[in-house]
Amino acid sequence: MDLGMIGLGRMGASMVRRLLDGGHRCVVHDLNRRAVEELQGQGAVGAFSLEELVRRLPAPRRVWLMLPAAVVDGTLARLVPLLDAGDTVIDGGNSYYRDDLRRAAELRPRGLHYVDVGVSGGVWGRERGYCLMIGGEPEQVRGLEPIFAALAPGVLSAPRTPGREGPPSPAEQGWLHCGPNGAGHFVKMVHNGIEYGLMAAYAEGFNILRHANVGKHRHDADAETTPLRNPEEFLYELDLPEVAELWRRGSVVGSWLLDLTTQALRGDPELSGFSGQVSDSGEGRWTLAAAVDEGVPAPVLGSALFQRFGSRGQGDFADKLLSAMRHAFGGHQEKKGG
Amino acid sequence: MDLGMIGLGRMGASMVRRLLDGGHRCVVHDLNRRAVEELQGQGAVGAFSLEELVRRLPAPRRVWLMLPAAVVDGTLARLVPLLDAGDTVIDGGNSYYRDDLRRAAELRPRGLHYVDVGVSGGVWGRERGYCLMIGGEPEQVRGLEPIFAALAPGVLSAPRTPGREGPPSPAEQGWLHCGPNGAGHFVKMVHNGIEYGLMAAYAEGFNILRHANVGKHRHDADAETTPLRNPEEFLYELDLPEVAELWRRGSVVGSWLLDLTTQALRGDPELSGFSGQVSDSGEGRWTLAAAVDEGVPAPVLGSALFQRFGSRGQGDFADKLLSAMRHAFGGHQEKKGG
Amino acid sequence: MDLGMIGLGRMGASMVRRLLDGGHRCVVHDLNRRAVEELQGQGAVGAFSLEELVRRLPAPRRVWLMLPAAVVDGTLARLVPLLDAGDTVIDGGNSYYRDDLRRAAELRPRGLHYVDVGVSGGVWGRERGYCLMIGGEPEQVRGLEPIFAALAPGVLSAPRTPGREGPPSPAEQGWLHCGPNGAGHFVKMVHNGIEYGLMAAYAEGFNILRHANVGKHRHDADAETTPLRNPEEFLYELDLPEVAELWRRGSVVGSWLLDLTTQALRGDPELSGFSGQVSDSGEGRWTLAAAVDEGVPAPVLGSALFQRFGSRGQGDFADKLLSAMRHAFGGHQEKKGG
Amino acid sequence: MDLGMIGLGRMGASMVRRLLDGGHRCVVHDLNRRAVEELQGQGAVGAFSLEELVRRLPAPRRVWLMLPAAVVDGTLARLVPLLDAGDTVIDGGNSYYRDDLRRAAELRPRGLHYVDVGVSGGVWGRERGYCLMIGGEPEQVRGLEPIFAALAPGVLSAPRTPGREGPPSPAEQGWLHCGPNGAGHFVKMVHNGIEYGLMAAYAEGFNILRHANVGKHRHDADAETTPLRNPEEFLYELDLPEVAELWRRGSVVGSWLLDLTTQALRGDPELSGFSGQVSDSGEGRWTLAAAVDEGVPAPVLGSALFQRFGSRGQGDFADKLLSAMRHAFGGHQEKKGG
Repeated sequence: MDLGMIGLGRMGASMVRRLLDGGHRCVVHDLNRRAVEELQGQGAVGAFSLEELVRRLPAPRRVWLMLPAAVVDGTLARLVPLLDAGDTVIDGGNSYYRDDLRRAAELRPRGLHYVDVGVSGGVWGRERGYCLMIGGEPEQVRGLEPIFAALAPGVLSAPRTPGREGPPSPAEQGWLHCGPNGAGHFVKMVHNGIEYGLMAAYAEGFNILRHANVGKHRHDADAETTPLRNPEEFLYELDLPEVAELWRRGSVVGSWLLDLTTQALRGDPELSGFSGQVSDSGEGRWTLAAAVDEGVPAPVLGSALFQRFGSRGQGDFADKLLSAMRHAFGGHQEKKGG
Repeated sequence: MDLGMIGLGRMGASMVRRLLDGGHRCVVHDLNRRAVEELQGQGAVGAFSLEELVRRLPAPRRVWLMLPAAVVDGTLARLVPLLDAGDTVIDGGNSYYRDDLRRAAELRPRGLHYVDVGVSGGVWGRERGYCLMIGGEPEQVRGLEPIFAALAPGVLSAPRTPGREGPPSPAEQGWLHCGPNGAGHFVKMVHNGIEYGLMAAYAEGFNILRHANVGKHRHDADAETTPLRNPEEFLYELDLPEVAELWRRGSVVGSWLLDLTTQALRGDPELSGFSGQVSDSGEGRWTLAAAVDEGVPAPVLGSALFQRFGSRGQGDFADKLLSAMRHAFGGHQEKKGG
Repeated sequence: MDLGMIGLGRMGASMVRRLLDGGHRCVVHDLNRRAVEELQGQGAVGAFSLEELVRRLPAPRRVWLMLPAAVVDGTLARLVPLLDAGDTVIDGGNSYYRDDLRRAAELRPRGLHYVDVGVSGGVWGRERGYCLMIGGEPEQVRGLEPIFAALAPGVLSAPRTPGREGPPSPAEQGWLHCGPNGAGHFVKMVHNGIEYGLMAAYAEGFNILRHANVGKHRHDADAETTPLRNPEEFLYELDLPEVAELWRRGSVVGSWLLDLTTQALRGDPELSGFSGQVSDSGEGRWTLAAAVDEGVPAPVLGSALFQRFGSRGQGDFADKLLSAMRHAFGGHQEKKGG
Repeated sequence: MDLGMIGLGRMGASMVRRLLDGGHRCVVHDLNRRAVEELQGQGAVGAFSLEELVRRLPAPRRVWLMLPAAVVDGTLARLVPLLDAGDTVIDGGNSYYRDDLRRAAELRPRGLHYVDVGVSGGVWGRERGYCLMIGGEPEQVRGLEPIFAALAPGVLSAPRTPGREGPPSPAEQGWLHCGPNGAGHFVKMVHNGIEYGLMAAYAEGFNILRHANVGKHRHDADAETTPLRNPEEFLYELDLPEVAELWRRGSVVGSWLLDLTTQALRGDPELSGFSGQVSDSGEGRWTLAAAVDEGVPAPVLGSALFQRFGSRGQGDFADKLLSAMRHAFGGHQEKKGG
């Protein structure tokens, strides 16, 4: 079927290629002419303006935005006046689901439909397929099924769950209509919140393995240092790349994130190419905000998020205040360099 | 080769079967005669006493213990006098690595060798193979390689990491000599610590999804209840079994634990068969203790462990004290049933 | 000076009494006639409707709302049309500072002023005085100084900070103009966030003291229970009420919350009058949301908040999912009653 | 009465002075001659060797050690042979209570008694008095009461708890016999664990206040940065030293730690004299280990401890691993300097 795609960055361009492979007709646009031309050369219909994109699509149109969250509203402001009642806008970026609710309400009086799609898969999705979490009206979602099917990994990408038989459900193929508007990005948001927790669990564990040799180091024996009581129990020099590789087979902690960790450690066991200032792209924050609004505990996801903030020095003043208090009540001097 | 196996429970019996499949000769013992007889019928050599087990093994003997951690020392006390210099004892249970260090030191003067093996794979290992984390002297570990190879999943159980070529390393086959005594159980300990964190991340995330309908419920508007400011943003009824199924394909959070979660939710979406009192079997505690000894942060693994303690009511007195303080400074009455 | 007070509950009525003691004229209103009549008998001017309250105040009027956060907007909707340009509305309840920003903006076009005051002190404020955190325009705040001075504890309520000399600053008297609108409730919000953390620190600590006798209990030695390795180190029966009393003098952890804890434990050492379902009244949630928006780490405040959610059973589904996973990979059965 | 004091550092020397004020005879020793001579000049009996100290004390002797935990055992090894049956050794330092249990057991066969005393009060104790948490045999503790009474702050140092009448209990005076050996240091250990939690609660809260102006800063709008949705809600420039001062009067979060925080912020509002590398002196670690052994949740105390580890860079490898994973699945580049 016909689909317009606006935003041909890392994600958008790869998705178009996968759609072209699936036999769909893609009309593509990006502010960057080169990105449009490149996909033209691969079978897409290029459009060098929003107007052109709209013109080249048959009604009712389906236009998919694959843009940074911060520019979605601006793009919609220019796109919406060009559309006709019955058209559908799909936001496949990392939007906050609350924005989906607002946008769907804004488009509704014009007879426009809005579908939100949380997309997981990262740079690997071109090859593996994309996991799609979808929110919107049933009719519009149904109409987009061929698109979702082409983007999703398909049932063969994982063994079927025991007891599942017959034609695979959409979820088994890698896409799911989760509920009304916002439901797609809500599920994607929590997906990423979980991702933060999983990543932190591995990171803390490998860090403990890495410091298993702490008994070999000489330690200061002053009042500001807690002596290690049992240095003879911490004399291990563990081969982290091999441990990661090991856990990929047969263990309880096997996962795709572990596969990636294994690759990263293999190339650079000390991870010296990284500074350790870890960004966060919003969903972890929103997940925590949702937990707080719902009144449900999320101590692990919260700790994982706060660890990232701390890695960027955002807790430095708090740390200084701790040192200041210690100095005030105990005369403790800060140790430098350690 | 020949191996003695003591302890034919859920894990031990399945491991023997996998070893028999691999062409090894297993002399097996358990306090439960039935367990011995059953494996006899499947090709193992039965031994109805430790003496018989020792007698039926050619020297130098290799005896693998697959026992609850609490009974390993008692069994060793009876087994060791029966062994000869040059024999090797393998502890494949969930021992604390500090006990490995002590036991290896106790056996050494008698000329006995000790190998510790952390085994992951649970009830699925019979079919998938077992992931083996090994500590001990290089020579003894080398001598046991055929056993490890038969138990481990083998290289085909996961795609090879990009860049890995040629004959697969032991880790790629699913077993690894991690270091000297204790290193096997140390790595297994941290493996389980990570497992706790991964499990908690999924559990918290699915709980947030489950409460995404909180805006539909009427809430008391009293001074003890925080009103939900935006109920219209929490009206989703999400299909958790389908979301779990969805994430198995193409998403960043795919893992074996997610596969199992999917199965569990499919059979019982409300998980009504469980009370939510979550046990812990030691490794999570020891991982946290290791982090504390090493002086490295583990907030996620710690939160995951403490959540389990709390699920068993171990924080109730603390909660009561919070209510008592609130009553003391603000005259707040506890809400019942809420 | 003259002040209108709307809301004569636990807090409002006590504040009026303190203001009357300070020589101020208070015109008081509450939906509950009795509450009005009682304060009439103590020197206040009763008003049995908003109209009457407004009529009995000289212009420019100052009207203080001391109401549950949920009814402030409704009250304002009825009050505002009765007021004249130049009048000031003070919200002394537990409003979210974001509501202050909105309300101030709504009142401004009518020439009305808005002052937000976070009030700490609870039921003890009548006697100790109230700690006041104030946001608003400088001129309006200045005009209210006599009111703030009468409500606040005064400089003698704590030893002066070393180096502070001369006339005490407002903060030393117990009130502070923190900044523009919302600043008062913002500071009060974080104050309560800290309060949650402090309370949790004491609660966890006393819980650890209470379980210091865990070595005396027989423990199951099954695969679902982690045996205590060193029971002889946990044989203490500590007298919690006396420990709390002890820490009030000379220790680093002395505080007003500890004073209250001591009282609570003295009356009921087992805290058997409490169920342990701990409410939260919003500020802890908003503090965490502010930390997330600011991108600063707050793992302790977050853990304290989530512990409260958990105490009310909001994490039960997550706990069940953990048990379900353990059953799925290890065949673990939940232990009941433990 | 007569007391020997070994260790005349910051704590020991001040305690001797307070004992001399109380009319006790103190025989004092330190490796540093100067420290001995200085106290000689203030009324103490100087001893320039352990032998001399022992000789100058009447039997049964009471010898108090006020030494870094790391040198207690070495000092005992030299002291014990000089003592006679019936003598008592008091350890007032920051020993681990497990060492108390061991030492008491070692001294018992020689007829020597051991008393462990956790001392809180820091550099302020000389003036405020010391809070004493005591473990040991009832008879020895009883015999030391005059010493404890002289060191402790006394009942007047805090208002009596409502309902307390008649002669003040020891706890009301600031000392308490908590239980058998180790109980004193156990209670002190948890005291410090709570202290870590309280400190972290303040530190996180003040950090949130400090970043309340985050809406004023220009933020990058790239894919690695989460945009602040509501910058107009974060425009506050709060005066932290004055907020701290404010909370000292009438608020729920008043405490001695807050008094010290106020002093620290007053002198250096930016805390520029501190680097933010926060030491920990053991008790926080041991408290967490106790919680883990007891199986009780301590998420707040754990988070506070881990935050300190993180402040010293002990989580850097974990952070790098997070960045490496993000790069692996999403092609995310680390942002530098932010």
